[in-house]
Amino acid sequence: MSKERPLILISNDDGITAPGIKALVEAMKPLGDLVVIAPDSPQSGMGHAITITRPLRLHKSNVFGDDVLAYQCSGTPADCVKLALDKVVDRKPDLLVSGINHGSNASINVLYSGTMSAAVEGAIDGLNAIGFSLCDYSFEANFEPCKSFVRKIAKNVLEQGLPNDTLLNVNIPNVSETDLKGVKVCRQAKAKWVEEFDERRDPNGRKYFWLTGQFSLLDHDEQTDEWALKNDYISIVPVQFDLTAYKAIDKLKNWAWT
Amino acid sequence: MSKERPLILISNDDGITAPGIKALVEAMKPLGDLVVIAPDSPQSGMGHAITITRPLRLHKSNVFGDDVLAYQCSGTPADCVKLALDKVVDRKPDLLVSGINHGSNASINVLYSGTMSAAVEGAIDGLNAIGFSLCDYSFEANFEPCKSFVRKIAKNVLEQGLPNDTLLNVNIPNVSETDLKGVKVCRQAKAKWVEEFDERRDPNGRKYFWLTGQFSLLDHDEQTDEWALKNDYISIVPVQFDLTAYKAIDKLKNWAWT
Repeated sequence: MSKERPLILISNDDGITAPGIKALVEAMKPLGDLVVIAPDSPQSGMGHAITITRPLRLHKSNVFGDDVLAYQCSGTPADCVKLALDKVVDRKPDLLVSGINHGSNASINVLYSGTMSAAVEGAIDGLNAIGFSLCDYSFEANFEPCKSFVRKIAKNVLEQGLPNDTLLNVNIPNVSETDLKGVKVCRQAKAKWVEEFDERRDPNGRKYFWLTGQFSLLDHDEQTDEWALKNDYISIVPVQFDLTAYKAIDKLKNWAWT
Repeated sequence: MSKERPLILISNDDGITAPGIKALVEAMKPLGDLVVIAPDSPQSGMGHAITITRPLRLHKSNVFGDDVLAYQCSGTPADCVKLALDKVVDRKPDLLVSGINHGSNASINVLYSGTMSAAVEGAIDGLNAIGFSLCDYSFEANFEPCKSFVRKIAKNVLEQGLPNDTLLNVNIPNVSETDLKGVKVCRQAKAKWVEEFDERRDPNGRKYFWLTGQFSLLDHDEQTDEWALKNDYISIVPVQFDLTAYKAIDKLKNWAWT
């Protein structure tokens, strides 16, 4: 019975026409009934933004053919998931997958990533959720080699269920299937972007700035996602949305606050 | 010597003209040399969004008078901090303060908050950073009673320095100074927003949706920020930007991934 197949909600941040989400849809097809709800324009770097000062539009899309129920939304990735859960699906999805992102969301990039925020939004609502990223920023990236791994990881999560309040940040190195060494469960590497804004003048002589920067890896430990990716492993980082720095609580309780 | 006074970077997400940032500037004046860089328009709910598809503008502002160096920026709160650190300040700030936000950033709201993302961005760059919020969403909120507490908390952090990779999420209940019970160092309460999108028709008959929702508190423990606020305490949650769910790593390592 079709009703008993798992319901899989799919989103991304590169927009509904990005090749990465097409690959994700194809990878998920054998696993369940699909509902896609993705931004109608690229939303990279939107982090966990939500839209509160303007209304949202939602339109059906046949970009994945007639057999996949799909919608495009004018909002952010987090908006897409919120709207899907309130207005689109008629039962709780068994899995939310986001991506496949064009480019790495490993280490500190998890904070800026709209792909991951869609997954976080699902996890807050109690869904099994995974964000997938391929470490190739180009629009022409080849997603074929990673489709079987993406399907396998999703199947694993569907069958076993993730620990409470935990989602997965999965990054896939840009190597051939034969060069891929396997999967490593790891932690987020410490890293930051060192900004170098590019200062320019517009045709009217007014200054403007483009955000550019250098990625600075501060942590070369073998337990990190960056190490795994550099050594041709798929990195899987379990992610939480409780941001409390528990280790600091006792120390700060001893301060004289008043 | 003026050069030896602490350098305090100030931002927010409600925009440079919001009453909350004016109160924060006034609270910080006795503590050091100030540089303000804040969005030129409201950016509530922007989470950790950054601007990568369009350039940014930066203009000097005298909204705080001639004795406070201030800039307005066309980007998000995270953009403001990135731009300030690359292009505006000539030394590393001793403290970054963000806010005072109009409305709570306790519990799950920390994820959606542009105020907190400005502070997180500073902390990633190694700064002492604090996000302040007053639990009153109105533009006409009265920030007077909380100014002395905000100053005291900032002074404490300037003098003692925060633990590595840790910032503070400070929320202030909307009560009078006499009703305030004190300060509690606590953890982020488990909570979520249950969305109820408001479905409407535009003048052309096309459907659109407004994001609305109900806050759902899932955690009434006395160690949480929500408990502290409900009981008239200022809540201070130490926040980290390593999102790894460490507790889940060993369990997930035992899964058959390949």
